[in-house]
Amino acid sequence: MAFHTSHFLHGGDYNPDQWMDRYPEILDEDMRLMHKAGVNVTSVGIFSWVRYEPSEGEFHFEWMDQLLDRLHHNNIKAFLATPSGSKPAWMSRQYPEVCRVDARGRRDHHARRHNHCWSSPVYRRKVADLNQRLAARYMDHPAVLLWHLSNEYNGECHCPLCYESFRQWLRQRYQSLEELNHAWWSEFWSHRITDWELIDPRDHSIDGLRLDWHRFVTDQTVDFLKAEVAALRKGGAQQPVTTNMMGTFPHLDYWKIAPYLDVIADDAYPTWKYHDQQDRTTAAHTAFLHDMHRSMKGGQPWLLMESCPDTVQWAPVPKRKRPGVYRNEMLLAVAHGADSVCYFQWRKGRGGMEKFHGAVVDHEGSENTRVFQQVAELGQTLHHLPQIPGTTTPAETAIIFDWEVRWAMQTSDGPSRIDKGDPYLAPVLDLHHAFWNHGIPTDVLQSTADFSGYRLLLAPQLFLLLPGVAEALHSFVHKGGTLLLTQLSGVVNESNLTFLGGFPGNGLRQWTGVWAEEVDYLYPEDSQSLQFNNTSDFPLRGNFPTGPVVESLRAEDAETLATFQNDFLASKPAFTRRRLGSGQVFYLAARMPVSFYHQLAEAFRSSLGLRRSLETHLPEGVAASHRTDGNHDFVFLQNFTQRPHQIQLDQDDYTCLESEQRLPEGLHLPPWSTRLLQRPAR
Amino acid sequence: MAFHTSHFLHGGDYNPDQWMDRYPEILDEDMRLMHKAGVNVTSVGIFSWVRYEPSEGEFHFEWMDQLLDRLHHNNIKAFLATPSGSKPAWMSRQYPEVCRVDARGRRDHHARRHNHCWSSPVYRRKVADLNQRLAARYMDHPAVLLWHLSNEYNGECHCPLCYESFRQWLRQRYQSLEELNHAWWSEFWSHRITDWELIDPRDHSIDGLRLDWHRFVTDQTVDFLKAEVAALRKGGAQQPVTTNMMGTFPHLDYWKIAPYLDVIADDAYPTWKYHDQQDRTTAAHTAFLHDMHRSMKGGQPWLLMESCPDTVQWAPVPKRKRPGVYRNEMLLAVAHGADSVCYFQWRKGRGGMEKFHGAVVDHEGSENTRVFQQVAELGQTLHHLPQIPGTTTPAETAIIFDWEVRWAMQTSDGPSRIDKGDPYLAPVLDLHHAFWNHGIPTDVLQSTADFSGYRLLLAPQLFLLLPGVAEALHSFVHKGGTLLLTQLSGVVNESNLTFLGGFPGNGLRQWTGVWAEEVDYLYPEDSQSLQFNNTSDFPLRGNFPTGPVVESLRAEDAETLATFQNDFLASKPAFTRRRLGSGQVFYLAARMPVSFYHQLAEAFRSSLGLRRSLETHLPEGVAASHRTDGNHDFVFLQNFTQRPHQIQLDQDDYTCLESEQRLPEGLHLPPWSTRLLQRPAR
Amino acid sequence: MAFHTSHFLHGGDYNPDQWMDRYPEILDEDMRLMHKAGVNVTSVGIFSWVRYEPSEGEFHFEWMDQLLDRLHHNNIKAFLATPSGSKPAWMSRQYPEVCRVDARGRRDHHARRHNHCWSSPVYRRKVADLNQRLAARYMDHPAVLLWHLSNEYNGECHCPLCYESFRQWLRQRYQSLEELNHAWWSEFWSHRITDWELIDPRDHSIDGLRLDWHRFVTDQTVDFLKAEVAALRKGGAQQPVTTNMMGTFPHLDYWKIAPYLDVIADDAYPTWKYHDQQDRTTAAHTAFLHDMHRSMKGGQPWLLMESCPDTVQWAPVPKRKRPGVYRNEMLLAVAHGADSVCYFQWRKGRGGMEKFHGAVVDHEGSENTRVFQQVAELGQTLHHLPQIPGTTTPAETAIIFDWEVRWAMQTSDGPSRIDKGDPYLAPVLDLHHAFWNHGIPTDVLQSTADFSGYRLLLAPQLFLLLPGVAEALHSFVHKGGTLLLTQLSGVVNESNLTFLGGFPGNGLRQWTGVWAEEVDYLYPEDSQSLQFNNTSDFPLRGNFPTGPVVESLRAEDAETLATFQNDFLASKPAFTRRRLGSGQVFYLAARMPVSFYHQLAEAFRSSLGLRRSLETHLPEGVAASHRTDGNHDFVFLQNFTQRPHQIQLDQDDYTCLESEQRLPEGLHLPPWSTRLLQRPAR
Repeated sequence: MAFHTSHFLHGGDYNPDQWMDRYPEILDEDMRLMHKAGVNVTSVGIFSWVRYEPSEGEFHFEWMDQLLDRLHHNNIKAFLATPSGSKPAWMSRQYPEVCRVDARGRRDHHARRHNHCWSSPVYRRKVADLNQRLAARYMDHPAVLLWHLSNEYNGECHCPLCYESFRQWLRQRYQSLEELNHAWWSEFWSHRITDWELIDPRDHSIDGLRLDWHRFVTDQTVDFLKAEVAALRKGGAQQPVTTNMMGTFPHLDYWKIAPYLDVIADDAYPTWKYHDQQDRTTAAHTAFLHDMHRSMKGGQPWLLMESCPDTVQWAPVPKRKRPGVYRNEMLLAVAHGADSVCYFQWRKGRGGMEKFHGAVVDHEGSENTRVFQQVAELGQTLHHLPQIPGTTTPAETAIIFDWEVRWAMQTSDGPSRIDKGDPYLAPVLDLHHAFWNHGIPTDVLQSTADFSGYRLLLAPQLFLLLPGVAEALHSFVHKGGTLLLTQLSGVVNESNLTFLGGFPGNGLRQWTGVWAEEVDYLYPEDSQSLQFNNTSDFPLRGNFPTGPVVESLRAEDAETLATFQNDFLASKPAFTRRRLGSGQVFYLAARMPVSFYHQLAEAFRSSLGLRRSLETHLPEGVAASHRTDGNHDFVFLQNFTQRPHQIQLDQDDYTCLESEQRLPEGLHLPPWSTRLLQRPAR
Repeated sequence: MAFHTSHFLHGGDYNPDQWMDRYPEILDEDMRLMHKAGVNVTSVGIFSWVRYEPSEGEFHFEWMDQLLDRLHHNNIKAFLATPSGSKPAWMSRQYPEVCRVDARGRRDHHARRHNHCWSSPVYRRKVADLNQRLAARYMDHPAVLLWHLSNEYNGECHCPLCYESFRQWLRQRYQSLEELNHAWWSEFWSHRITDWELIDPRDHSIDGLRLDWHRFVTDQTVDFLKAEVAALRKGGAQQPVTTNMMGTFPHLDYWKIAPYLDVIADDAYPTWKYHDQQDRTTAAHTAFLHDMHRSMKGGQPWLLMESCPDTVQWAPVPKRKRPGVYRNEMLLAVAHGADSVCYFQWRKGRGGMEKFHGAVVDHEGSENTRVFQQVAELGQTLHHLPQIPGTTTPAETAIIFDWEVRWAMQTSDGPSRIDKGDPYLAPVLDLHHAFWNHGIPTDVLQSTADFSGYRLLLAPQLFLLLPGVAEALHSFVHKGGTLLLTQLSGVVNESNLTFLGGFPGNGLRQWTGVWAEEVDYLYPEDSQSLQFNNTSDFPLRGNFPTGPVVESLRAEDAETLATFQNDFLASKPAFTRRRLGSGQVFYLAARMPVSFYHQLAEAFRSSLGLRRSLETHLPEGVAASHRTDGNHDFVFLQNFTQRPHQIQLDQDDYTCLESEQRLPEGLHLPPWSTRLLQRPAR
Repeated sequence: MAFHTSHFLHGGDYNPDQWMDRYPEILDEDMRLMHKAGVNVTSVGIFSWVRYEPSEGEFHFEWMDQLLDRLHHNNIKAFLATPSGSKPAWMSRQYPEVCRVDARGRRDHHARRHNHCWSSPVYRRKVADLNQRLAARYMDHPAVLLWHLSNEYNGECHCPLCYESFRQWLRQRYQSLEELNHAWWSEFWSHRITDWELIDPRDHSIDGLRLDWHRFVTDQTVDFLKAEVAALRKGGAQQPVTTNMMGTFPHLDYWKIAPYLDVIADDAYPTWKYHDQQDRTTAAHTAFLHDMHRSMKGGQPWLLMESCPDTVQWAPVPKRKRPGVYRNEMLLAVAHGADSVCYFQWRKGRGGMEKFHGAVVDHEGSENTRVFQQVAELGQTLHHLPQIPGTTTPAETAIIFDWEVRWAMQTSDGPSRIDKGDPYLAPVLDLHHAFWNHGIPTDVLQSTADFSGYRLLLAPQLFLLLPGVAEALHSFVHKGGTLLLTQLSGVVNESNLTFLGGFPGNGLRQWTGVWAEEVDYLYPEDSQSLQFNNTSDFPLRGNFPTGPVVESLRAEDAETLATFQNDFLASKPAFTRRRLGSGQVFYLAARMPVSFYHQLAEAFRSSLGLRRSLETHLPEGVAASHRTDGNHDFVFLQNFTQRPHQIQLDQDDYTCLESEQRLPEGLHLPPWSTRLLQRPAR
């Protein structure tokens, strides 16, 4: 089922349940203020289980009837949640099995949220029952636009039921203990499993087990999500469904969740420092998330489900969000494919641990706050851009980001010790950053994706190669694609077993022409650099300091474009190219700083003729992105710095989307500002 | 019952129980050395339960009979302890319920001290029984001056009995679940309590619950303390009672304990660094504690129950205490109202985890140590000051320090993230520091205190307003008082629910004339400053960098005395005044460094004509305090720096308390020294 | 039983069990590669329990038969392990008692290794049974050179069986509760033990208990080890036994384990930083370990059982080991008495948490790697040095390093707070470093060792004096020895009770002539220094900054050679000497930096005429060591810096051990290199 909206959705999480009993006047005031703020959608019912069912079997839906009617009456739509994210306390007492068990075997007391076992038959039954009732009741309510499944699914449970479920999952995966033992290399430290019952997921000695546990947690979550949807459908609900993801949340493989959603939704909480260098990095990382969410359904628009119009109370330094910063952050999502701008939260509650979380409406309660005013302004802007919703961004470049690769690195002792246990993420973000900075549209792909539509494929640290990936990469290159591989590629297979015969493995040593004999790590005080040859036709020259990971590479059958300069790597290859079929594969043997990737991206762009959202040079911290409906391109020019910039537009015919006026070639971009341009589609 | 002493008490914790079995000669030696050291009081029996009752029902008191007789014979008094602070191991095994349970539900093994459940009926009964026996036996022993209740009450227990007790406490407080749910804002995250039994104190999502749990722990401790006293009285004891507090210990509201004591007692362990800037801060913070303890019973003298004549073994760097440092530290307590100087401990034990805790008598055992000599010298000094015990310090200025405010900030996510989770304490200490530095006597008050005797009331970060406090502040100002409010005032009510309608809430926005629209936090690299107007009659001028918390303030009906200079706060009000009735209220919208508070204190002093202990300018790190008996003032002039200072006395008639000689106007103050002066009472 | 080898052993841990099922060709390849690498020994069967006994009572030894035959056929010897270090999972399920319990009372799930209870009768029986079977089967297998007991014994268990065992151990030690209570000073905090059953090892208040628990854990481990050996002997095994130690592992007293081994074996994993200052310290600390292991059996050669030919995967920065670094590290062990160079591991496994641990054979699998080549080169070197195995290093100097002293400091609150809880180790290493740096051979001794063969005895921080030690020290001095005592000497007795009467205690105050009245600690920003007299005949002059621990010393009957310069210690004695009988005792009242110890070592050397391995001046980071067979001395000259050095040999007649050529007086030593010299024995 697809989800479309003909106009931008603007709104956010709305919890009138906190106010209705004692402050009924607040609900009236909410309608007045939503109108003023240009709000047309709200997420409701997210944590309302105890209100629906204050004691077992006693149901109350009238309040939600009234709420939805009121919203409808005010022309406001609803994302109606299933309340599985936080169960009532009576259920934890009545059925202790619904509470999670931690890795030390301790059953949780009732507290917080996201606190339920994934396997518990009781909990599954209770959720299905309530979802079905909600569906039956609101299947055709005109206010309900979308079902919001639970909230930020996360966490894991170590109860006997979940362990049994893991063992079943393993039986399916491996069929025999012999296969499992080989995959887990369990002869190591005498860990051979001689009976399925002996499997204990807490044995961190077995890296294959750890990887499988990660997969299982995702699969279990997906299974739970599917059961939620099934109950809604059984209840008769016809509306599309989604759930709110959390960016690159480390513990769930969102690639496996995406197929079950009708539209992708994400919660984004970037932290701005009001220092240019850090903020442009934050902007780039945020753009990466947005590109990933846009790519998850092949370019379809997605929903920004939660963001903060102001400060988050959980920040170590809960700094206020300045007006331009807020506007840029929201329009960055729109620039990268979001068809909504939604906030957590509409109104600050009086109590609870999120009482100081930023909201559109402050405790003060009026429309007179700075925050409210800026939200209302953006509401106006969005209201005047009906051309954009539904449009997309075509890309010639793609970068691989895959949770399975990440988990393989995290569970492989050695590599896992870098970057506080998450050695995969940073280089991916850094490389994407460089392309974003040039305004080169980039998709973000799973390693098993179809690469055929792209001209350039970036595969930083492709440590794990799932079955078929090596072949797909080879085929991509052979048919004319350009592939970039880097250090720590092709190291383990799907079971976290290292390839034999030299890295990059699984055949890559042969067709890339390089053997990465050793990987070395630098202390902060060490230095290494790479120097480009002056003779090659690859348009990159000069000497560049490396980052903290370098490889001792042998160019067995590849052209050396750059060599290392120091230490025992001196004069060894650092960057190579091999032509293959009608394509080419590059191997970069060092993790590098963003500044180098920036030059590398430019070299790829100029040599491959990659197109940019704006064909002009952009200063650091200024970004250009675009969406297109085939007739017109909508260009977002954004300044994430505290300085004004003068931008030279390219030769095309630009008008301002807001004023509809023709734009001069030299465009003034104030600090922390966004200009919205339109031009004929290219 | 009141406690009076006609001379300074000098002594400390005395544990002959560790020596009497195998080293009887040590007890004789103790008497000889106590005489040499000028010791006239000892705390005895603090951890003696197993000696009184080595197995259940088998009691031995002869040793205490002999000890008290021996002390009496040597003209040494006793603070006789109840031994509830550490139970015998046999009791932990016989009655496991007496052991505490931690927040993860784990019953403690027998170890340490302060290790008992507060609710256990068995433990209560055992304590009452032993206290009653002690009282009956020593009710009229001439050596027993005072009952020392337990020792440094602290800790909490998570056993089912304590949880049940908490639920009873809540029933009393709220009467109905409806009231409790509103107070706890429990609709948030579906945490509504639908049955009293469902309350789980470990649910940190509910900030109201967390605040109530803090209150409950204090109330439970008070209840335990009262039961201890009741048993003593039932046994016939007539002597006054106290217990030793621990300064600003975060987990007990000492304002609620103070009423049940006949005299206030405190344990003070300041850490000196032998670097002037840090040491003057340490001295100021220590003076704050002393002022608080003096204020707890309206100016009555209090007892310094524990201090260290040398190094504490638990310091990260267990640095020796230099002689002048020791003397200054002890006389600082006396200057601020202590009528005793007592040490932990008289003699170092041979074993146990405090074997290296500083003591008057070292393992070496003779009177020849540096430490013994300095103690004996101070003993001499105290012996020659019989005028001082019983005297007090009148104050025109008071500062509010309230555990309920502190807990509200600590449990409110957002503000709680500053200052390592204790955002309330530092600004209070800093503001008090400034007044201490000028020699302006300052009382320390609970927020519900009677403010009527004061001219200036400092209420830094009065985040929580208990019922009646807003009205009391208004009344104070209306009747002519000067009130200073600061950032983060009037934010929540007694349930930790934010006020609605704009901060400072509960009516304060109206009568202070300011609305604190937003609170902002600075990164260490950020900078903000405030600039004073040149036109106002408030005697403060110039530009001052702020601390890390600033507010976006609107002066709705107040005079702006200073404005912010940077960032989005530029030109907004930073410091305001509103006249009201015959008084005035100031609002300072930024946390500031001590150096600013110093100038602010001077501005208040000069504009209000506040009196100082010495009417002269004092260099940083030099302090003047005084006590008075109505006829004479006793002035303590103390140098907490490593440099000598020349102090210009004021015009009064000063004699030296020790030499009784007339003093010149220019007084030399060597490094780390105290001069004791006397003048006619003012 | 003694262990001798007529040639260097070269090899390492070999786990063909990980490969034999699916990769039989790998085993053939291993033999080919071992031959190329000069490998003549392997450690086998270390974690093979599940392969021997995949289900209870089902045994498989054929694979080991074949393995040993294959090794024998290839002239490779085996260290055959007992597999007690990691039990099969079925055993953990069948007999939960075999799993350890942690200090919070939680029974371990099955995971990791070193995961068994020490007391469990079931586990003891299972281990004995399997050991006996192995012994019976391989008692006369020609490949089996040595039994390798378990692997890196470590850890403790808090189960009821172990606690009961501890109580029995205490009954034996103390006989009566009265003695125990005195030793534990348990009147402190009411901790008197009134029934053996009340003893809880987790009571950290009792420092005597903590010390005893440490001792018990060692004794329990020794008991387990002895049972392992007994089972081997019962099975008929005649070969010698060893186990691999872990340097100065904090939790086992290896002095108590050494007597039960036929040869000492150690695992050494120094971390090189490739920065000269740090690396020379690392080299010195490693040399200390080697000296200790050589001293453990009176100078007999020992086995380097595990080392890494490359990077360890568990390093925070898993840096590759450069070739010269590798070679120096291995030859450092040989220089200090090792008769083997063995690695963990021969070949990298494909999975498990050590899959990236350095190995001779990489995942790549060929002999073409840099690492393999360097190992093969060293194999060649060792092959050509048949003169050296069996030789030893006579020493005139000894330094005391004793785990009981270390534990006493660690469990004594106060001193324990320095150096992250291990205040004993660093000064010992630093002092040894100085002597190593001069090329002065030094033995490392337990405090209860026989000192009679030495001329200079270094006893840094001899905090605890076991019974008889004070007398032995006195006798050593009286008979002509030179003794160096330092700060924090003679503080506690064997029960962790402080001595009375002034430190150094137990009579030392009397015969050293000094009283260490106070110990003081410095903040990092503090400074203190000591100044030597110009008049004494002790050949040391000048002013030296101290380290962070200093003492207030009184020279009651000793000559003051140096005095402190600052603070309250100014002009007090810092370094004293007292002549006694025909010897002398020095007392150094400050912890000092290595640079001072270097000068002190030189002063001792020149005044006592101590001999060096090479009678020449050595630059920092260059070390000379030697071994001798009585006819020839074999001198190892090693450069642990990144710079070349020119070394002036002494007047003796030197030939190069490798080239057998006569050497010039000025010898060139490239960066990170070792020269092997031979001369006539001195």
